Amino acid sequence: MHLFQGEQDFDKIHEECGVFGIETDHVGPQPAIDAYNALFALQHRGQTSAGIAATDGGQLRYKKGDGLVPDVFDADMLKKLQGYMAVGHVRYAAQGGTSGVNAQPTIVESRGEQYALVFNGSLTNVRNLRDKIEQNGGIFHTKGDAEVILFIIVRELLKTDCLDIAVQNTMKSLEGAYSFLLMTTDKLIAVRDPGGFRPLCLGERDGATVFASESCALDAVGARFVRNIQPGEIVISENRTVRTIPPEKTAGHSLCVFEFVYFARPDSVIDGVSVELSRQIAGQCLAKNDDVKADIVIGVPDSGLSAAMGYAQQSGLPYQTGFVKNRYIGRTFIQATHGERVTALNIKLNALKSVVHDRRVVLVDDSIVRGTTTDRVVSVLREAGAREVHMRIASPPFLYPCFFGTDIPSREDLPAAKYSLSEMEKLIGVDSLRFLQIEDLREVMTGLNIRWCGACFTGEYPDGITEAREG
Amino acid sequence: MHLFQGEQDFDKIHEECGVFGIETDHVGPQPAIDAYNALFALQHRGQTSAGIAATDGGQLRYKKGDGLVPDVFDADMLKKLQGYMAVGHVRYAAQGGTSGVNAQPTIVESRGEQYALVFNGSLTNVRNLRDKIEQNGGIFHTKGDAEVILFIIVRELLKTDCLDIAVQNTMKSLEGAYSFLLMTTDKLIAVRDPGGFRPLCLGERDGATVFASESCALDAVGARFVRNIQPGEIVISENRTVRTIPPEKTAGHSLCVFEFVYFARPDSVIDGVSVELSRQIAGQCLAKNDDVKADIVIGVPDSGLSAAMGYAQQSGLPYQTGFVKNRYIGRTFIQATHGERVTALNIKLNALKSVVHDRRVVLVDDSIVRGTTTDRVVSVLREAGAREVHMRIASPPFLYPCFFGTDIPSREDLPAAKYSLSEMEKLIGVDSLRFLQIEDLREVMTGLNIRWCGACFTGEYPDGITEAREG
Amino acid sequence: MHLFQGEQDFDKIHEECGVFGIETDHVGPQPAIDAYNALFALQHRGQTSAGIAATDGGQLRYKKGDGLVPDVFDADMLKKLQGYMAVGHVRYAAQGGTSGVNAQPTIVESRGEQYALVFNGSLTNVRNLRDKIEQNGGIFHTKGDAEVILFIIVRELLKTDCLDIAVQNTMKSLEGAYSFLLMTTDKLIAVRDPGGFRPLCLGERDGATVFASESCALDAVGARFVRNIQPGEIVISENRTVRTIPPEKTAGHSLCVFEFVYFARPDSVIDGVSVELSRQIAGQCLAKNDDVKADIVIGVPDSGLSAAMGYAQQSGLPYQTGFVKNRYIGRTFIQATHGERVTALNIKLNALKSVVHDRRVVLVDDSIVRGTTTDRVVSVLREAGAREVHMRIASPPFLYPCFFGTDIPSREDLPAAKYSLSEMEKLIGVDSLRFLQIEDLREVMTGLNIRWCGACFTGEYPDGITEAREG
Amino acid sequence: MHLFQGEQDFDKIHEECGVFGIETDHVGPQPAIDAYNALFALQHRGQTSAGIAATDGGQLRYKKGDGLVPDVFDADMLKKLQGYMAVGHVRYAAQGGTSGVNAQPTIVESRGEQYALVFNGSLTNVRNLRDKIEQNGGIFHTKGDAEVILFIIVRELLKTDCLDIAVQNTMKSLEGAYSFLLMTTDKLIAVRDPGGFRPLCLGERDGATVFASESCALDAVGARFVRNIQPGEIVISENRTVRTIPPEKTAGHSLCVFEFVYFARPDSVIDGVSVELSRQIAGQCLAKNDDVKADIVIGVPDSGLSAAMGYAQQSGLPYQTGFVKNRYIGRTFIQATHGERVTALNIKLNALKSVVHDRRVVLVDDSIVRGTTTDRVVSVLREAGAREVHMRIASPPFLYPCFFGTDIPSREDLPAAKYSLSEMEKLIGVDSLRFLQIEDLREVMTGLNIRWCGACFTGEYPDGITEAREG
Repeated sequence: MHLFQGEQDFDKIHEECGVFGIETDHVGPQPAIDAYNALFALQHRGQTSAGIAATDGGQLRYKKGDGLVPDVFDADMLKKLQGYMAVGHVRYAAQGGTSGVNAQPTIVESRGEQYALVFNGSLTNVRNLRDKIEQNGGIFHTKGDAEVILFIIVRELLKTDCLDIAVQNTMKSLEGAYSFLLMTTDKLIAVRDPGGFRPLCLGERDGATVFASESCALDAVGARFVRNIQPGEIVISENRTVRTIPPEKTAGHSLCVFEFVYFARPDSVIDGVSVELSRQIAGQCLAKNDDVKADIVIGVPDSGLSAAMGYAQQSGLPYQTGFVKNRYIGRTFIQATHGERVTALNIKLNALKSVVHDRRVVLVDDSIVRGTTTDRVVSVLREAGAREVHMRIASPPFLYPCFFGTDIPSREDLPAAKYSLSEMEKLIGVDSLRFLQIEDLREVMTGLNIRWCGACFTGEYPDGITEAREG
Repeated sequence: MHLFQGEQDFDKIHEECGVFGIETDHVGPQPAIDAYNALFALQHRGQTSAGIAATDGGQLRYKKGDGLVPDVFDADMLKKLQGYMAVGHVRYAAQGGTSGVNAQPTIVESRGEQYALVFNGSLTNVRNLRDKIEQNGGIFHTKGDAEVILFIIVRELLKTDCLDIAVQNTMKSLEGAYSFLLMTTDKLIAVRDPGGFRPLCLGERDGATVFASESCALDAVGARFVRNIQPGEIVISENRTVRTIPPEKTAGHSLCVFEFVYFARPDSVIDGVSVELSRQIAGQCLAKNDDVKADIVIGVPDSGLSAAMGYAQQSGLPYQTGFVKNRYIGRTFIQATHGERVTALNIKLNALKSVVHDRRVVLVDDSIVRGTTTDRVVSVLREAGAREVHMRIASPPFLYPCFFGTDIPSREDLPAAKYSLSEMEKLIGVDSLRFLQIEDLREVMTGLNIRWCGACFTGEYPDGITEAREG
Repeated sequence: MHLFQGEQDFDKIHEECGVFGIETDHVGPQPAIDAYNALFALQHRGQTSAGIAATDGGQLRYKKGDGLVPDVFDADMLKKLQGYMAVGHVRYAAQGGTSGVNAQPTIVESRGEQYALVFNGSLTNVRNLRDKIEQNGGIFHTKGDAEVILFIIVRELLKTDCLDIAVQNTMKSLEGAYSFLLMTTDKLIAVRDPGGFRPLCLGERDGATVFASESCALDAVGARFVRNIQPGEIVISENRTVRTIPPEKTAGHSLCVFEFVYFARPDSVIDGVSVELSRQIAGQCLAKNDDVKADIVIGVPDSGLSAAMGYAQQSGLPYQTGFVKNRYIGRTFIQATHGERVTALNIKLNALKSVVHDRRVVLVDDSIVRGTTTDRVVSVLREAGAREVHMRIASPPFLYPCFFGTDIPSREDLPAAKYSLSEMEKLIGVDSLRFLQIEDLREVMTGLNIRWCGACFTGEYPDGITEAREG
Repeated sequence: MHLFQGEQDFDKIHEECGVFGIETDHVGPQPAIDAYNALFALQHRGQTSAGIAATDGGQLRYKKGDGLVPDVFDADMLKKLQGYMAVGHVRYAAQGGTSGVNAQPTIVESRGEQYALVFNGSLTNVRNLRDKIEQNGGIFHTKGDAEVILFIIVRELLKTDCLDIAVQNTMKSLEGAYSFLLMTTDKLIAVRDPGGFRPLCLGERDGATVFASESCALDAVGARFVRNIQPGEIVISENRTVRTIPPEKTAGHSLCVFEFVYFARPDSVIDGVSVELSRQIAGQCLAKNDDVKADIVIGVPDSGLSAAMGYAQQSGLPYQTGFVKNRYIGRTFIQATHGERVTALNIKLNALKSVVHDRRVVLVDDSIVRGTTTDRVVSVLREAGAREVHMRIASPPFLYPCFFGTDIPSREDLPAAKYSLSEMEKLIGVDSLRFLQIEDLREVMTGLNIRWCGACFTGEYPDGITEAREG
């Protein structure tokens, strides 16, 4: 008998974080409340810890802690986070990390100024950067990239009075995938890495400036989407006026393809593309090259539903709801089993017998990373009487590790890297298994006008990450 | 700024309870663990309190409390609930009820025997019954029907040694809608009222006897569905042998139609009918009589999705996902708003702009009871750019109060009883509004071979509830 | 490594409860707040659970739960307990009792009236009473005497309209030691058993009527002590007017001597006698018959301090503080030990080496019941360098079980009943051990003008407890 | 109605912290458990936050948080803090400080080594030190002196390989009052400032090295007192071998006199002097110069009891217990009052009427700092019937602020600096008020062979604190 966190699906690849920031014209609890609502909308990007910092121009107040957004904050707390600006952060961490300490915002003080930084991504040269700082007498409280960036910014500020320039100079040192927001007492600065690996967008509400990892967070605070931050761009909001420092070096845009495959919420629009539609298109693509004989198409909730709908549309097979997902699963739940029969998955998902019984089922999911629960999902269908199960994955086989801020396992744990297709079919227990072809993915992305990083599928990494790959 | 419980949707009609019981052959924590998993599967039937009692044949142990199942129980607690039998209960209560005290199981002792009772429904003659007991020196700790039934059973036992007969005699006094389970140290007894208003089914797992309000709870514990308890039947499990006392008086079967409309989980099969299919059929019915010009069909999550799918199948219009529901909403959440813009609904639901923008949308929901949030759902669609919104309700107008264990408001609060269709269209803000015709509902139910109570739609109440109606 | 509750000293005999009640002229949170403050002052009488019920004349609201008073209540909760009357209860329970359910007030309803009862003591004929009620169709939710009394009162009310008379008639059935308060919507009734085993007093504040187990609770709410409730008396407060039903049968007053020995707070005055002074007198008595050669007198905190001071005054030896007690011990604390060296006692108490080193110490405690920690206290002194330790106990040897509401162990667990004085000296590790002589105790009590029950010391039980003694 | 923390007496002066460290020969939970027990014994030195860090030679694990020791830790947590060394800290903070972040140990990493530092005291030149570090690119996460010291140590380590030398060099920069423990993966280093303001002692248990602020913490873990750390000394424990770096500059020993007056626990021995005895001597001193006519001597619990006993011994007047302090007060408690009558003090303290009624009372307390509750204590006595109240304070008038790590208010808040003796008598409501003469204090301390800082009484500050005094 042990605990599991219902929504935190260890079988999937996980994003590290979601970020949010807002600058309004009025000191009060509203910016922290906005951050709270926005982080709740970004909760899917990180379930380990959450934090909000607000500044009233003089004092910076914050609260951060382990757990989901509603666990970390309560109404009294939000009321105390008075400010006219706020930044917020949700974070996913692999199990076992020292609790609490790595929660963001990371907040430091130097020479009379306060800095709160929220970060999404991964610096591939962090080890080098940290070594240099330590050789110069720096000490670190966390393992995080955020603290490294803050050290560099503060040191750049010794050379220039201008924070804009200091941030610009700091970017020259940083390699990897990163979007971050930096809040001081009077500025809110948004930075997106030259590769544009991680999404970051700008919104507006009644003159207030809003930044968020995904546009769904703009919706959550009633803000209007203005535009995406460009790869390599710095956007500064000060006195609710927005200015920009355009990209210096234009590395090829390398938006992480997994934002579309799994990370982002379907109602978000990232770099101009609807996540929902991109998934439906991937499902359509799958169907185009498929000639399986089946009766219905169903998706694995929730990640496979959009692609399943696309598959159904293209194939002409009826789309159906194949599973009921327990609506209350988003809580800590005791896994209390009866021998081998009832598992965490059974508690989360139940098959709709009336739908799948005696049917030939096309079962669509977004991806197979570790593949540890896929066989259970298939069993649930079999036990409910499905005659045939044809699994279709709306992304290519996951073959290579990622160095850009996801929790991807080593190749050892990637079944697609170890087994042949027919071996995987047997392992998972399906009648057939097909992946999206890498060529199809390329075509989809080209059609959507997205330049992307798909190194996890192709092994073709962007430039400049040698350090991390050897680490 | 105030709290709301995400999933507990006050705009809907609510069931009072869900019940579960199990008799195994082995003293240990397993029956309580099974109850826990089953109650979690029945959580949709009641979110106010939860409780489990287990008996090892000598000592009865229990735990009950306010909150969702995972809030009330933890692993250590379950381990302590040692027994070979267990009963469990989830309960919904209107706001403001005295906390905790009315949580079930209701557990009492008399003449050396312990009784734990879990109850779903409502006795329409409870006032009379309670008066009689009080006139005879009875005292009550709760407001609940369960305590009244226990008093009657214990008093019947003064006349006969046989608990079976005492329960049978007790049923003669009871009027209304009820399913209950009674656990003593050596018996587990399941009772369903002669009208069969509330569902109750029997399952089996490795020789263990299982009872549950819905079949989805059998799935949750790995049990096999055996059969439904018949209206008016008493089923006794003792030493894992099941015996039955068949119905004495066969009132017309009056299964509550709202079990299909809203209460039950789609993966449950009630009295032989798949809940999911019944909803899809209702949606098909809606479409048959409809000639609206539209581009897509979407459902209100989660209650309208099945009917929307049925509507789409029948109409030939594409079924789409119109909303993203925050997966983490099942928790207590601070409603922290920005003026009028962001509401609890916005935090729960966001429209998929890419899907609904510039479209003529058929929006399907299961029912309109109070109608207090329907206008907000429509607004969300409008703000996301929907060109037209045609609302379709997969049940008839809700016109009459219910006396059988739901939290139905007085007629004052029922918009369908107060407004004309065109008034409601204006209030809700839709281009058109249509309900399922009562004739269609009759036809559906007849087709499904279900005898049902639809008094809330028709005003035709079953016999014998005069007291309550005047109360 | 396990938890222990610092203050709950299992080595001592424990009272079952403390009660409090107040009737004011104004509906608001004040009566519940008063109950809260009073229960906190009575916390020493029971640390297992606490509860408060308040009535506004129509609705009765209550809260009860396991734990210390500040654990069960918070400010918001107290504000909700609106009323013009309130009763409160603290309760001690032996380990392992089913949690929560037996917390008081016990609250029931019958024939339109609500009853809240708080009870201190033990009915010796409870088994008979309960059997009779069950033979007549009664069911019980708790193990408590309070529920039995409520059943009898309600049944007496079937014969008479007058609650006063019903309570009076009820008393005729009850045997044993009891003080209780009964609150209805319009009356607050205080009852003390004919033997007067348990204390109960009446106070007044600005016209409000106050009842409490000990006078220290009157002080805690700013009330003036008016008088003790007499043995066998019923006092009714209604509309802030107090009337009395004088005792019917005048059993000999049998105040439990342990109220003075250990239970009551030193600042309480019980039946006219200051608890502090009675303890000092007992200490003086001990010294009068003692000729031990020693350097200092110290007490075991907190229970032995008053008697130690009396001993010092009489003997002329200097009184000193021999131990420092950790002020923070009143909390749940993890007992985490290093082998055998550091025990729960070490964490609670440390000897003052500078005081006891190389001294001949007279160590005074109030009583030895189980004797399980006395040897540890002595060890602490020895390790701190005490040359000689002469233990003096300010009560006679504890030889006989108690049937009047304390948690006294069977004779098996009473060392004084099993061992000779010299054996006990060896077991405890002292150079000498002396108890108060039973004759001295008699003399003290006579001097204080108290008629008392000391059956635990003498084995001479009051009349009418045959049932319990055989049980 | 608001909350107050029972034990945290805002009327007193407060220490900043208590520290503890242990090096054993075995990796396991024991060092953290020892730290837990020791911190619980040091709880009186700080009630705001608590923390423990343990190292197994490779990994450093820690837990810190707001609240009392038993609130921050539980058994599971302690088990996880595996190590062979541990350091712990309790901290007092003025109200309103940003929660959590300033809790210690302060833990940082640089160049592959981990450092955990626990600190007691106050650096008077911290502003200068911090400025220098910030000018060199340093960033700060806390407001604490500990982080400053860590920065300096790490920078000194850039110049030398040897941590001993780096610490020695660091001390040259530090001014003020400080004792700290520094734990790395293989060393435990104890440092006491050259003035010796704050106590720090060395103990031993089965070869394990133990450091603690007070000797009572050694008792709490079963360790033997070895010796005090000398002012200016550095003691290093490595592989359970202790080596010392003797003081470089021997500033006059300036032990804070308030350790004896109020801070330390009576069972501690500080720099060779028993705290209990020093207080009794101060009480005797008070009595020597006093000729008040009185009947009894009582102390204000708990801080005035030792001096009251000394006063009674010297004067020949009987020592009595004048107040009962609620044993359960050490918890968060809701202050819920009835108008002006019942205050937090009444809930904490009740007078023993039988002792003080109609008596002329000498009331002894340790000090008057803010004086905000003294008048209430006197009122409680008056209401209990005391005929005369003669207040005697076992320390001189508190006239000057402190810059060495206590929470002393500005002179504005010090009544002794604003009012004449007769004005204070009136304000407090006593018949007479006398303080210990500063000459008597000098004589006491000389007699005890202690060189001390009593700047708060005399205004004569040790050298080198100009910065702070102007700050």
